[in-house]
Amino acid sequence: MIIEQKLKELQIVLPEAPKPAAMYIPVKQIGNALFVSGQIPFRNGELVYSGKVGSERSLEEAQDAAEICVLNIIAVAKEYLGNLDKIKNVTKLQGFVNSEATFNKAHIVVNAASKLLYEIFGEAGRHARTVVCTNELPLDATVEIEAIIELIG
Amino acid sequence: MIIEQKLKELQIVLPEAPKPAAMYIPVKQIGNALFVSGQIPFRNGELVYSGKVGSERSLEEAQDAAEICVLNIIAVAKEYLGNLDKIKNVTKLQGFVNSEATFNKAHIVVNAASKLLYEIFGEAGRHARTVVCTNELPLDATVEIEAIIELIG
Amino acid sequence: MIIEQKLKELQIVLPEAPKPAAMYIPVKQIGNALFVSGQIPFRNGELVYSGKVGSERSLEEAQDAAEICVLNIIAVAKEYLGNLDKIKNVTKLQGFVNSEATFNKAHIVVNAASKLLYEIFGEAGRHARTVVCTNELPLDATVEIEAIIELIG
Repeated sequence: MIIEQKLKELQIVLPEAPKPAAMYIPVKQIGNALFVSGQIPFRNGELVYSGKVGSERSLEEAQDAAEICVLNIIAVAKEYLGNLDKIKNVTKLQGFVNSEATFNKAHIVVNAASKLLYEIFGEAGRHARTVVCTNELPLDATVEIEAIIELIG
Repeated sequence: MIIEQKLKELQIVLPEAPKPAAMYIPVKQIGNALFVSGQIPFRNGELVYSGKVGSERSLEEAQDAAEICVLNIIAVAKEYLGNLDKIKNVTKLQGFVNSEATFNKAHIVVNAASKLLYEIFGEAGRHARTVVCTNELPLDATVEIEAIIELIG
Repeated sequence: MIIEQKLKELQIVLPEAPKPAAMYIPVKQIGNALFVSGQIPFRNGELVYSGKVGSERSLEEAQDAAEICVLNIIAVAKEYLGNLDKIKNVTKLQGFVNSEATFNKAHIVVNAASKLLYEIFGEAGRHARTVVCTNELPLDATVEIEAIIELIG
């Protein structure tokens, strides 16, 4: 339980894995690749951050939202895998930042998520990444992040 | 021809597979994964839904557009595979909803696509999903959806 | 060195591979699939195109930006692979065009990237593709493109 130990060291308590409220599932596996559905900043059933960066939300709030998205990614992966040590690599993140059309720091928002993955998984947590803004997100969430995770074969 | 039979039961007639008007192809395979290009609501050569949700289009119209996108995904997969029974799983959808910056129900739009996949493919049709809004789409289409499909090995 | 030869014939000099300024990496491999991080129009350390299409940037400028993104995709792949002849296929592009909410030609922007890939890689360069607009991009870049590349097994 190496990753669980690491979470403890970092004093991170995973939120409960968000349940999809609709006709999709949190993760789906193809070969060794685990596709994780886009996660928004829910914490234990409550949307913690809604509103746009550049007006309603600060950069710091959006970074916090990005971290919660990543914890949800880990939480749904854990629910599916049972044991987080089955994760070989975080392969890719795609991040969407709900923002005003003048907010050009989406990469700095999602970098908080990337940093957190590195702290938890070390080199295995370093990933390819695409970050863009969007004019709106489901439930007006501030950030949405999806992931592709490589599992131990 | 299990899936074709299911389509008949559901009284679904697949549209003709949209031809890319440009330098890309509708699907490309890597291993058992079939990447399907983003589909917009074309039906037999005509764009059925353009315009933004939250002003020019209703939620119901956008849901209908999402269903047409999914039928196009199935149509281009069929054109490539010959037989839809070669599909093992729908792994992932990514949906983009052309909307006003205040429309926070993109997930409900794309859920119509997810439901339709479940009706057609059953459990194999349940997928991971990411849905976001966008301020505009090619040809001002109302919805665009791409897919990753797992093929029988 | 077939692809290097082809680049010479086309008189294309690859830019230096952009270094991520943050906690992610330019590419990450899973099996034979190489995920390339979203590239923006940097050329040798300088962002060549910023600003939105439909107001601050013309269609032609955005197409030029899309070509630079693709050259950066090739540059980071080369840095990782050493030899571009290890590329079997360009599987998928995802393109984001920073635009006004009325600009409905994002597909024509990113088609310049698709054309360039076809010129360089021939049939192997033909790919599945998703193109959308976005209200903003990191650093106000005009275009961002990510890729999935299949490597020779």
